[in-house]
Amino acid sequence: MTDQHTTAPTAPTVTVGQYLATRLVQLGADHVFGLPGDFNLSLLDQMVTVDGFTWVGTANELNAAYAADGYARLTRGIGALVTTFGVGELSAINGVAGSYSEDVPVVKITGMPSTSAKAAGLHLHHTLIDGDYEHFYRAYREVTASATLLRAASATRDIDAALMTALRESKPVYLGISADVAIAPVHAANLRTPLVPARSDLGELERFTEALAEAVAAQSRVTLLVGPQVHRTGLEPLIRSIADHDGVYVAAQNMSKAVLDESHPASLGTYMGAFTRIDEAREAVDDAPLLVLAGTVMSDFLTGFFTQRFDEDAAIELGLTTARIADTTYYGVRLTDSLAALHRVLGDSHRPAVEPVGHPPVPEAPEVVPGRALTQAHFWAAVQEWLQPGTTVVADAGTSFYGALDLVLPDDSALLGQPVWSAIGYTIPATLGACVAQPDHRAVLFVGDGAAQLTVQELATILHRGLTPVVFVLNNDGYTVERKIQSPEAVYQDITPWNWTLVPAAFGAADRIVTATARTDDELAAALATAQETTGKAVLIEVVLPALDSPRLLTELTQAISAAAAKAASVKP
Amino acid sequence: MTDQHTTAPTAPTVTVGQYLATRLVQLGADHVFGLPGDFNLSLLDQMVTVDGFTWVGTANELNAAYAADGYARLTRGIGALVTTFGVGELSAINGVAGSYSEDVPVVKITGMPSTSAKAAGLHLHHTLIDGDYEHFYRAYREVTASATLLRAASATRDIDAALMTALRESKPVYLGISADVAIAPVHAANLRTPLVPARSDLGELERFTEALAEAVAAQSRVTLLVGPQVHRTGLEPLIRSIADHDGVYVAAQNMSKAVLDESHPASLGTYMGAFTRIDEAREAVDDAPLLVLAGTVMSDFLTGFFTQRFDEDAAIELGLTTARIADTTYYGVRLTDSLAALHRVLGDSHRPAVEPVGHPPVPEAPEVVPGRALTQAHFWAAVQEWLQPGTTVVADAGTSFYGALDLVLPDDSALLGQPVWSAIGYTIPATLGACVAQPDHRAVLFVGDGAAQLTVQELATILHRGLTPVVFVLNNDGYTVERKIQSPEAVYQDITPWNWTLVPAAFGAADRIVTATARTDDELAAALATAQETTGKAVLIEVVLPALDSPRLLTELTQAISAAAAKAASVKP
Repeated sequence: MTDQHTTAPTAPTVTVGQYLATRLVQLGADHVFGLPGDFNLSLLDQMVTVDGFTWVGTANELNAAYAADGYARLTRGIGALVTTFGVGELSAINGVAGSYSEDVPVVKITGMPSTSAKAAGLHLHHTLIDGDYEHFYRAYREVTASATLLRAASATRDIDAALMTALRESKPVYLGISADVAIAPVHAANLRTPLVPARSDLGELERFTEALAEAVAAQSRVTLLVGPQVHRTGLEPLIRSIADHDGVYVAAQNMSKAVLDESHPASLGTYMGAFTRIDEAREAVDDAPLLVLAGTVMSDFLTGFFTQRFDEDAAIELGLTTARIADTTYYGVRLTDSLAALHRVLGDSHRPAVEPVGHPPVPEAPEVVPGRALTQAHFWAAVQEWLQPGTTVVADAGTSFYGALDLVLPDDSALLGQPVWSAIGYTIPATLGACVAQPDHRAVLFVGDGAAQLTVQELATILHRGLTPVVFVLNNDGYTVERKIQSPEAVYQDITPWNWTLVPAAFGAADRIVTATARTDDELAAALATAQETTGKAVLIEVVLPALDSPRLLTELTQAISAAAAKAASVKP
Repeated sequence: MTDQHTTAPTAPTVTVGQYLATRLVQLGADHVFGLPGDFNLSLLDQMVTVDGFTWVGTANELNAAYAADGYARLTRGIGALVTTFGVGELSAINGVAGSYSEDVPVVKITGMPSTSAKAAGLHLHHTLIDGDYEHFYRAYREVTASATLLRAASATRDIDAALMTALRESKPVYLGISADVAIAPVHAANLRTPLVPARSDLGELERFTEALAEAVAAQSRVTLLVGPQVHRTGLEPLIRSIADHDGVYVAAQNMSKAVLDESHPASLGTYMGAFTRIDEAREAVDDAPLLVLAGTVMSDFLTGFFTQRFDEDAAIELGLTTARIADTTYYGVRLTDSLAALHRVLGDSHRPAVEPVGHPPVPEAPEVVPGRALTQAHFWAAVQEWLQPGTTVVADAGTSFYGALDLVLPDDSALLGQPVWSAIGYTIPATLGACVAQPDHRAVLFVGDGAAQLTVQELATILHRGLTPVVFVLNNDGYTVERKIQSPEAVYQDITPWNWTLVPAAFGAADRIVTATARTDDELAAALATAQETTGKAVLIEVVLPALDSPRLLTELTQAISAAAAKAASVKP
């Protein structure tokens, strides 16, 4: 969580729009994404008056939601977006659902028609012409932890409650704000009291800690499996401290690998059940005398399609807001406190040091054969060599995602992607959010050509804001990940072939970027060298790859999926 | 409604996917839009085997929904799209809501995880990791006339019922189809019986016709106000027949103007309450001795912000599925039959001919001053001169929409846009749908630069399919329609400046299009001449216009909106 800014107005009243924007700035959501529309102009006019508030206009609303999500992941705090009613908010809902699926606290703000228009059921544009102004609010209730239609009288309380919910649950929340409510005056006094994220229940925490000490004391070794919620809550430093105790192994679910340097003696690398790269690492998780699940998510892509062999019930489970040891669940014990307790308890007892087992083969610099057509294997090996410390690696669903999972991340680097929601196209707008959130870390984006076509327009926003990511477009002529699963030659796997290196010029930003196309080993080497040297501009490298080639891990996974699908299809007539 | 094709398989069984695709082909939805995803591959594999079925892959799901909507409007039949679960369907929901708002029968088809995965509540990707597989189905219930999760045992009945609902209500419907259901065998016999759109209740129709005859006989003049539902149901020929009776005036709500040639003696042009262009035409509606509302929608944009002065209760109302005379509503009297009854009744009695009053000033060819910077007024006058018969004019919300509303449409032309839902960005994908539906009519698209950025990627699909619309991008440096309403200089009104004429090349389609930029009268004249001569290719003309200039009608409307907003804001602190 970002430290709260001290922004608070000195006037006795502010408008509801100003109150909300001030709270967002206090919580680190000082960059807010979205588009104007005639039902949110009054709201935006209020929000932009607040000190420290910066508007980041995006090209469409889905992209705003993705950008706010990427921003929240990088700041470890709140992300926010504002759209208009109906047309705007529904375009964004897929992005907000992704934030729910992946535990990202995003505040979705909708500018609504006036209270009087709603009360009268006026047949306004952007409605279903049935007088019901709550259809879209109800749709949002399906994908948010709370959804609230603000009234002026309770607006400050409701805004604070929604933001607290987002912080506490690490989930998105929805606020609908009518134009007249947005400009209504409210007391500003509350704003002098910063919102404090919920703390653990101290009694429960004490009981949990006692039980934990007992469970740990009995064991000569502890394996910690770390999931995405640890990254979401910014608890990596605590994981690193825990890893420094003797007798501890630390494995990471995919996308959480940046939690611990993979050369650390305690590191088991990435655990994905049967698809874990190193057998000894898999066994150190599956057969651990004591397994602690820290912020894990047991979804298909995170468990190697449910091939984990450990006994989940026997493991100690540390969740975002609860902890569990054997049959006892400790409600209100938050991950930050349960992990801190684990750290203390490990320090109070002693275990022998573990044998390092989980280290993947040290990647070798790939041989560059001039004129040889690129393969996925060569590409990822070359990228591995080239990656620098302080990088935000962003990987879209599909080949990019599975290629990036096998990278050994350099120091001070993060990996951004959607292992659960897995919406293709997420990453271009998420890169916008990441670059805005952490301008001192260079973003390196890997995105397939099919995925990039979904949300390509946000590259314009990235470039015109002067942001300088390196973008690899993996041009493999269609939806390769789907081709690998089923019907590789089907017409629906095709996409239109673009000239990727011309895209920045079409977006009016040729002077803000260096572009290259790499078809061969040597072209890639040259492009990587150029990217390395280019600091004040963005870089786009089109990487031409075979349509049916895929990174190691994806090849293995899709073989498993295809086999399962074939088995299911044996009932086919 | 398109005549039903006679496609029906001879095999005793087909799969559910084949059954659905066959029904769609029978109903004229032989082009289906969408994207693949791992939960719809089995469904798509079945659908593509059906004779006459054509897959139109789009760049993203929102665009698929818009394209299906445009397709349905032009065919006057069903449109259809297929996406994957969660990530795909939620991206499309805004487009489907637009179809609801504007009475367009679109079938939204979602490929879902298997029945067994759903029953077990597996924590699959593309879910919210809570075991609940109905969140997105429930979201769709808010914006569809029916939403159904198919089971194999009742699939054919449920598919037929959903399609009948779409046809009867002229509204979108939702079908969720698990991978195993998609490949389940079902009896094919039903397919030999085409689905027949619902007919009127004959008893009610008779009672209605009697009452109508009585109401009409008493009057020396009848004014018919025609709304978008007439276009939706393809009843323009009936309107033209009615207009040929003596003693009849016909006015059109905006976007319905193509219903009657504006030079017809009965034509009153477009009626928009206080914003009606010709006072006598307004009076002929507001003060009509007998007003008949045919398929009208009384929304803000269609009534000049509720400035209609006629008494809605005193008018005869002919709706999609009901008719009303005075206090009596006749349920089950469909628009096609109520209009046919009106036609007969008018023929049975006689009225004096009306004076033509509603004809807008004959547009004059604008003077071309070489080197003079373009204005909105000059642009639309030049377009008026240039438009050819047999055109589908597509106009995006904002300046494009209001400019197009003032055009006198040439013969055999249609106007496509969203007067109610008014989602910016709708028109590029809708143009794809329109071109696919009606390849013999050239589409001429007007879209603002801000709007075009939302959905620009679908231009690639248009071009790579060899479609040949003329696209005018009105480059006026931001969201002009919002600037006209409020806070013209606000930061949120800005967009990134693109090189529009480079976009087709970036999309790999430079050889399929001619591009030009027009900044001055003479550049526009040259570009229009080029567009006229270019038949085998698409044309993109970037029209550079001042940021705060707007077409006549939009200027008047936004002044009224601003005044209303200022009045509302007088309570501002």
